[in-house]
Amino acid sequence: MPYRAPLSDYRFLFDQVLDLTQVTATERFAEATPDMIEAILTEAGRMCEEILAPLQRNGDLTPAKLENGVVRTSPGFADGYRAIADGGWVSMGADPEHGGMGLPMALVSAVNEMMGAACLSLQLNPLMTQGQIEALEHHASDAIKETYLPKLISGEWCGTMNLTEPQAGSDVGALSTKAVANGDGSYAVTGQKIYISWGDNDFTGNVCHLVLARLPDAAPGTKGISLFLVPKYLPDEEGNPGRTNDLKVVSLEHKMGLHGSPTAVMQYDGATGWLIGEENDGMRAMFTMMNNARLGVGIQGLSVAEGAYQHALAYAQERKQGRVPVSDGTGTIIDHADVRRMLMTMKANIFAVRAIALACAVAIDMKTATGDAEWGARAALLTPIVKAFGTDTGIAVAEMGVQVHGGMGYIEETGAAQYSRDVRVTAIYEGTNGIQAMDLVGRKLMDGGEAAFRLMDEIEAVAERTRGTLSDLAEPVWEAAETLRETIEWMVAQKDMNNRFAGSVPFLKGFARVLGAHFHLLAAEAEGGDGPRSGLARFYIKRMLPEYAGALTHAREGADGVYALGIEELVS
Amino acid sequence: MPYRAPLSDYRFLFDQVLDLTQVTATERFAEATPDMIEAILTEAGRMCEEILAPLQRNGDLTPAKLENGVVRTSPGFADGYRAIADGGWVSMGADPEHGGMGLPMALVSAVNEMMGAACLSLQLNPLMTQGQIEALEHHASDAIKETYLPKLISGEWCGTMNLTEPQAGSDVGALSTKAVANGDGSYAVTGQKIYISWGDNDFTGNVCHLVLARLPDAAPGTKGISLFLVPKYLPDEEGNPGRTNDLKVVSLEHKMGLHGSPTAVMQYDGATGWLIGEENDGMRAMFTMMNNARLGVGIQGLSVAEGAYQHALAYAQERKQGRVPVSDGTGTIIDHADVRRMLMTMKANIFAVRAIALACAVAIDMKTATGDAEWGARAALLTPIVKAFGTDTGIAVAEMGVQVHGGMGYIEETGAAQYSRDVRVTAIYEGTNGIQAMDLVGRKLMDGGEAAFRLMDEIEAVAERTRGTLSDLAEPVWEAAETLRETIEWMVAQKDMNNRFAGSVPFLKGFARVLGAHFHLLAAEAEGGDGPRSGLARFYIKRMLPEYAGALTHAREGADGVYALGIEELVS
Repeated sequence: MPYRAPLSDYRFLFDQVLDLTQVTATERFAEATPDMIEAILTEAGRMCEEILAPLQRNGDLTPAKLENGVVRTSPGFADGYRAIADGGWVSMGADPEHGGMGLPMALVSAVNEMMGAACLSLQLNPLMTQGQIEALEHHASDAIKETYLPKLISGEWCGTMNLTEPQAGSDVGALSTKAVANGDGSYAVTGQKIYISWGDNDFTGNVCHLVLARLPDAAPGTKGISLFLVPKYLPDEEGNPGRTNDLKVVSLEHKMGLHGSPTAVMQYDGATGWLIGEENDGMRAMFTMMNNARLGVGIQGLSVAEGAYQHALAYAQERKQGRVPVSDGTGTIIDHADVRRMLMTMKANIFAVRAIALACAVAIDMKTATGDAEWGARAALLTPIVKAFGTDTGIAVAEMGVQVHGGMGYIEETGAAQYSRDVRVTAIYEGTNGIQAMDLVGRKLMDGGEAAFRLMDEIEAVAERTRGTLSDLAEPVWEAAETLRETIEWMVAQKDMNNRFAGSVPFLKGFARVLGAHFHLLAAEAEGGDGPRSGLARFYIKRMLPEYAGALTHAREGADGVYALGIEELVS
Repeated sequence: MPYRAPLSDYRFLFDQVLDLTQVTATERFAEATPDMIEAILTEAGRMCEEILAPLQRNGDLTPAKLENGVVRTSPGFADGYRAIADGGWVSMGADPEHGGMGLPMALVSAVNEMMGAACLSLQLNPLMTQGQIEALEHHASDAIKETYLPKLISGEWCGTMNLTEPQAGSDVGALSTKAVANGDGSYAVTGQKIYISWGDNDFTGNVCHLVLARLPDAAPGTKGISLFLVPKYLPDEEGNPGRTNDLKVVSLEHKMGLHGSPTAVMQYDGATGWLIGEENDGMRAMFTMMNNARLGVGIQGLSVAEGAYQHALAYAQERKQGRVPVSDGTGTIIDHADVRRMLMTMKANIFAVRAIALACAVAIDMKTATGDAEWGARAALLTPIVKAFGTDTGIAVAEMGVQVHGGMGYIEETGAAQYSRDVRVTAIYEGTNGIQAMDLVGRKLMDGGEAAFRLMDEIEAVAERTRGTLSDLAEPVWEAAETLRETIEWMVAQKDMNNRFAGSVPFLKGFARVLGAHFHLLAAEAEGGDGPRSGLARFYIKRMLPEYAGALTHAREGADGVYALGIEELVS
């Protein structure tokens, strides 16, 4: 499965659509010069193409397994991980104080996308570590930072997130893992955690678990949750891995895909851990980490979409079948209108997701660099959209990739099915896409829609500005934006939150369709309305954008109708 | 995975929506009395619930395998097959002259749905045999009929379809398997066929292959294709399995799902076969068989949708998570608005597909019973819609079933993922869904849209008739029907077929959405607008029907835009 890093798209988006110079003009990110950005994208792209992509099938064919309590990873994964760590790709965004490169999230996101497209199972490992680094940078004591951050940033150690328990999934507040103070500043953590991605491995010197648990007499729900760092090996006085901690991998899950990533059930039996942040304030630290992890998972959807697209495109250029209706092509199935429709749909969706995801990353960077609350609100608003739309798109594009292959798509040897199986979990983990949609219509509209309306103003301004030169594109975007604005108003007006929740998933879908159109319009504008990016924008705006109307109609229907049938009526 | 046969839905559809009495009032189907129909549905339902459903996981966990040239089927499949054969469920629709029950396709379809929901991999076996029985009934010589039909109908033997070759998939005319007359009335067939579902098994006394091949000097393309019956064992003079024929299973495919169904590469090395139908007229016989097989595969999508729905519904009633917003429910996740939205979406879609599929079956029955060409045209029009919409819905519903399960959905032990993996092939085999859509806008509109407009007249008449009593439902259906009518007119007006093809998939999707709304409206009308079927209709018409607009806008965009990017521009 060869993979080509989509460098030209990053360059175009950074230069022509998202104005990355606003980020690099800040003092915080001044080191990210154009030359450095180019070097990083090129170098990371090369590693993904040459080192990670060849590992993709290994993860599927030879899953990680648990042998006598030890996790054995898929063939080549240890070398792949070493390449990621040695290149500094685990920690590009981390604070230089502890060895990071301090680079913008926009760039981190592009590199994460490429790593995920090349080998999703392996990329999930450094993605988890990135989140942990961030949580420690913001909330850990100096002693913890000094011991852990340099090793996490170098990739010598890696990190995991431990939230879920059998009875506490989407409702994290229901968790029951306990932590009791040992009297020496450490805590004894006891409980079982499930769905722990990369819960263990055989290629890092330590595995550091961030574990949510309750102190004795803590309040019920999320207000009584604290966060602990619990390493597999307790660091000795020099900070090197010492005594084995009282925790173990009980089992690994047998999953639909992502076989290269060991998903562990973890057992903590009075394991030694250290409090991160304040007592009973664990959710705040977790949310810092989770927001960026949600962006990261949305980008995983994008990764697989790009990988599956390239894979299907290659097949469509090889496979001959039937008389083709156009004469200037290759004579393969790529010249059939319906195959071309599928490839254009995939590519147009990928552009939309990539633009939205990188716009979210730029907003995070601007917030980091300037502290401006409006940028923070923009990032917060876009995060659930990136997570849900990115992963739904990943699933849809991978699915379409299977279809482009015809019968071959269903045969595992082809690799098309693996993309489809691997990406499926991204709509579930890190908060299901339903949870993302509830977050969008709930917390993210708690400002009365202020951040959303500010975004709508920008979308309408671009449509207004291009109305004269690109009227066939600007008009439909303007109309769609009006409907979206009205739907946001409708949402904000609902006092009964369940009316919002009932339509939240179609609302997010419609919102994303309009946002995607906005970025496609900007791309066409940058090109003067003539060229391949304009052709793609035209395809998206004329054929895919119209889906917004059905989705937003659904979004405004309220809760009553979803309960129209009683349980017995649903059953019969 | 418990399964409950959806008998009340069949009763309702047959009695209140589709008027099955028009079928049973004919001489041809006079034996299908209400008592007999009830007995058949009940009996078949019981077998599916008790005998077949427990086999579903076996197929996935212990796939069929090839050992020393012999196919070993999954545990319990032989017993399950025996129950199907003994119950007469292979051959319900077959001519009584050779031992069949001569029952209407409407009833056959309901039973096929139940068998597929209970165990899709196994159900595919008798589905293939049903097609073979039909082809032989219409096109075989009396001698062939006498030898083969009784044994196929009893289930003692089974049948397969051999069309695809490595270079001939969607373009069946490209096939190169050869047949040469032996001089004794038989032919020697030589070539390789791929993707042969149930190419062999260890539980029937013979496996009869219908093989498309070319006679020497046959014309190129589909006009030079003939059909041959090639049994695994050559019948001796008493018609019992005798000498082993010169054919073999080369290998079985490693597929994404449907592991219980062995998908074979078949090698024919001068194997003895007999011509079915006339020389060079194989495609006509194949098409008879293929149309009903397409209905059958569309119903497989429905099967999995129903199975996945029941499975998700059961989980939603058990799983507790988070504070629920309504107080009259069970307190499990089923009371969350977004979970309820998913379940309602699944159920509303299932009703739409089931109604369309059974309406297609009724049209086939009316054509069979009356010879009326209008009924034939109706069946032909609906067939690609059932196939593509049924299987797309199966995929979407199974996918949603995974999502309802949250993290558990991605763990194979749950079984939710199996539905999703199993059903995926139904959008590919028996003509990809892209091919179905091209058939709909091509062959099925070759009458200038006459059959389609006749259907639109009916849809509009129902909307008109219910406008007074059910205006909130009738109005949107009427509006949608108008747009669909205009889109059909647009399609018919396109002289360049590629303009039709470019929008064919969204056209079929929009067409199906409107058709589904029509049947939901009929259901609500039958209930007087008040009750669970009306609640479901309201959900579908207000929240799901609106998708038609985006789909039909896309459908009318023509071919130019899908070729807007050259191949190099798609790549970069």
